[in-house]
Amino acid sequence: MGQELGITASKERNPSEWYTQVVQKAGLADYAPVKGCMVIKPYGMKIWNSIKKDFNEKIRASGVEDAYFPLFIPETYLEKEEDIVEGFDPEVAWVTHGGDKELEERLAVRPTSESMIAPFMSKWVRSHRDLPLRLNQWANVVRWEATDTRPFLRTREFLWQEGHTAHESEDEADEETLLRLEQYQEVIEDHLAIPSVLGYKPEHDKFPGAKYTTTIETLMPDGKSIQSGTSHQLGQHFAEAFDITFEDENSEQSTCWTTSWGLSTRTVGALIMAHGDDNGLRLPPKVAPIQIVIVPIYQEENKEEVLEYSERLAEQVRRAKGCGCKTDIRVELDDRDHRSPGYKFNEWELKGVPLRIEVGPNEVEDDAVTTVRRDNGDKEMGVDRKKFLRNVEQILEKIQNSMYSELEEYLKENIREASSKEEILGTIGKNRGYVKTRWCGKEECEAEIKDQVSAEIVVLPFREDSKPETIQAYDEQIGGECSICSEDAERWAYFAKNY
Amino acid sequence: MGQELGITASKERNPSEWYTQVVQKAGLADYAPVKGCMVIKPYGMKIWNSIKKDFNEKIRASGVEDAYFPLFIPETYLEKEEDIVEGFDPEVAWVTHGGDKELEERLAVRPTSESMIAPFMSKWVRSHRDLPLRLNQWANVVRWEATDTRPFLRTREFLWQEGHTAHESEDEADEETLLRLEQYQEVIEDHLAIPSVLGYKPEHDKFPGAKYTTTIETLMPDGKSIQSGTSHQLGQHFAEAFDITFEDENSEQSTCWTTSWGLSTRTVGALIMAHGDDNGLRLPPKVAPIQIVIVPIYQEENKEEVLEYSERLAEQVRRAKGCGCKTDIRVELDDRDHRSPGYKFNEWELKGVPLRIEVGPNEVEDDAVTTVRRDNGDKEMGVDRKKFLRNVEQILEKIQNSMYSELEEYLKENIREASSKEEILGTIGKNRGYVKTRWCGKEECEAEIKDQVSAEIVVLPFREDSKPETIQAYDEQIGGECSICSEDAERWAYFAKNY
Repeated sequence: MGQELGITASKERNPSEWYTQVVQKAGLADYAPVKGCMVIKPYGMKIWNSIKKDFNEKIRASGVEDAYFPLFIPETYLEKEEDIVEGFDPEVAWVTHGGDKELEERLAVRPTSESMIAPFMSKWVRSHRDLPLRLNQWANVVRWEATDTRPFLRTREFLWQEGHTAHESEDEADEETLLRLEQYQEVIEDHLAIPSVLGYKPEHDKFPGAKYTTTIETLMPDGKSIQSGTSHQLGQHFAEAFDITFEDENSEQSTCWTTSWGLSTRTVGALIMAHGDDNGLRLPPKVAPIQIVIVPIYQEENKEEVLEYSERLAEQVRRAKGCGCKTDIRVELDDRDHRSPGYKFNEWELKGVPLRIEVGPNEVEDDAVTTVRRDNGDKEMGVDRKKFLRNVEQILEKIQNSMYSELEEYLKENIREASSKEEILGTIGKNRGYVKTRWCGKEECEAEIKDQVSAEIVVLPFREDSKPETIQAYDEQIGGECSICSEDAERWAYFAKNY
Repeated sequence: MGQELGITASKERNPSEWYTQVVQKAGLADYAPVKGCMVIKPYGMKIWNSIKKDFNEKIRASGVEDAYFPLFIPETYLEKEEDIVEGFDPEVAWVTHGGDKELEERLAVRPTSESMIAPFMSKWVRSHRDLPLRLNQWANVVRWEATDTRPFLRTREFLWQEGHTAHESEDEADEETLLRLEQYQEVIEDHLAIPSVLGYKPEHDKFPGAKYTTTIETLMPDGKSIQSGTSHQLGQHFAEAFDITFEDENSEQSTCWTTSWGLSTRTVGALIMAHGDDNGLRLPPKVAPIQIVIVPIYQEENKEEVLEYSERLAEQVRRAKGCGCKTDIRVELDDRDHRSPGYKFNEWELKGVPLRIEVGPNEVEDDAVTTVRRDNGDKEMGVDRKKFLRNVEQILEKIQNSMYSELEEYLKENIREASSKEEILGTIGKNRGYVKTRWCGKEECEAEIKDQVSAEIVVLPFREDSKPETIQAYDEQIGGECSICSEDAERWAYFAKNY
């Protein structure tokens, strides 16, 4: 594979150029004619579809139903929720004409759908028997971001799911908010093998109109944090504005509590950044479109036997999970005749395939395989074929776990405590990652840091005990003083640069 | 169920009002604040998702990959393909502002994506080894239809898949066009139980810029035809306009042949119209979100035993397919205490559930079930439970087939041949359905009919022999004279009123 096909930028020294090259050369996405938009290519789409499937199964199993709401939101609808308008106004793309005719009212291309869905919740919810109402849509949304757009990480149009629920009580809305955040955590940690930090967003950075916003943050190797999903407890704010009420068991009218939560194609960007290296993508087996690639290595005189062996092997690997009920292993035989084995090795490394099997005449003779792991380059030669087939699931699991552990260690090492303004600034200046500090809750204190280095409070972490049942249990009185203003501290805060 | 919940319009006498009521009362869709847009409710979404899944499996198995292209198409891109512009210009919704700023170039909200995808095909296709290139996207599209919008059948925003492929030769593009049309036929006939007529669209009614357009038409009980999917052979027209070329095996540059094909949420509208009756929806088992509903009938003194028996039965029915590998039967136990059995019967009929099981104290005592078919109302009392469980798959299959047969007969009866202009007009005036006639191929001849009755040529049917391999084999010299102008006839044509 020539220079033009391989990655020529260093992830360490030039992460931005590295990212751009990986996205394009690994066939994940391409740049669209409209600035800030992207074309998701089949390989990138398979990754997004895998994330979709994983999350979809979780929400299906916990009572969420799919629906679809219109792309266009009338301006007056958006205005009904003042906080929403303020939050999104500078980012809204406006439709003003249908064919040759100017529209009587201009239409927002949805930046999010709270103000579209709330009126229908109001219409559909009559009695406590209609609750909880849990809706989700997989959709495209548009936010006219002005700067720093990058495929997956920040695009003007992106794909996401947005969940919208209505409940009888505050407790139920709290539980829902937390449940969805924890399901995001399962997707990000178990499926994408990226450790995360869960917590609140600061009051001044929450979703417009929400009671509170929870976030799942992931730390990238360049030391920046990516907000990988958010779950909002909307309180009764939207329910009051849009009249979402119900008759309770005592025939009294009550106002609902609502939530919303979203996970977007941005997670694909986090996946690329978190695991990639200077040879390209590295994909955890669970999300990899191709989990194992078989590369036959032959001369003219042994071509037939090597190819035959490889084809049989591919079929055996595909079925290597005992029961036909489970998903087949996603295996590909690269039998292209016009490419050399070396070219193929590089290409599949670039595409991040977790395990490569090499089959040459020696392997055929010994009834064996040679395996090379993408994550750490470990090569095992002459592994007995039958033994390999027995262990193949375990091998993939091992790769998945070891990719997670690597990043988990990195995350732990890069949370540094600081207890004064100078220490915060010094730590951010010298190091990557999160700076953990006591904070009073005032935006001004965050601003003092933000003004000097381009870092902000990305998350107020939940306390680290094992999972409590409700969001309240995540709150804690930390005591001590704010590191910036010395007033009483409210919570721990993580400062970081972010995407 | 009160009047306000049941259907109050007759499908026969007032199909339009009937349709509107079924869509809303069966919980399929709701009206959006923007005229001509719709909200797809969970029950409607499940039907669309079932259609998606069925078609998706077919195209996956025949080499098509998912991708995603941007919602916004710059005006200059659209203009590059003059035919496309002419075809869609009056129907395009235009984005003119991003936030407060007027855009330098206005952006079309995609009415279809040929002009967006073609430039990328041009970029991605280099060699014959990159061909065929087969892409599909599941997406929303917008066509600013002025009149007669109705949920599913004609909406300004709708959901669809659009397939876009590039090939080395005309033959391959012909085959692709036909393959996708036949896959549409499988979805419509086998999954939705609606018989269809396949054929060409007249030259003047083909997709703008296409070599030819094929269509799958379905005949509704009100006598109107619905175009339920189209597959276009685009010739080299788009490939020339957007420079989609490849190096062939002899290292010569050649121009590709392209196709595109789409199936939309309109099929849900066809499903509602085709099978519904005065009690509401009737759903074929394959597409029904709930295939079997169990309604327990009890008094206070036998409530516990009836409910227990019903719960066990629900679990048994769910697993009634021998092997856990196959999909479970979609069964629901309606144990709502605040609704009477009669209310439930009506509600599940309205929602079109194919089979209802009634369980009362007699059934419990006899270890039996009582079943009622939604399609024909057939009731069987005291069916041995074990026997029922053994036969349940067959029963659902029988319902599926009998719903198809009913409409197949209707379709056959409603294709009437006519051999003069007067006869065509008379037949359309007196009867529902298709009028089959010899046609010369000139738009003027169609216009003579269209001007007098609101019917047009909806399809030029393929010859009816068993499936030939290529599209050419579907062409025939029919001989005889055009029924309207008496010049040489080119093909059979079907006149009909349509949606």
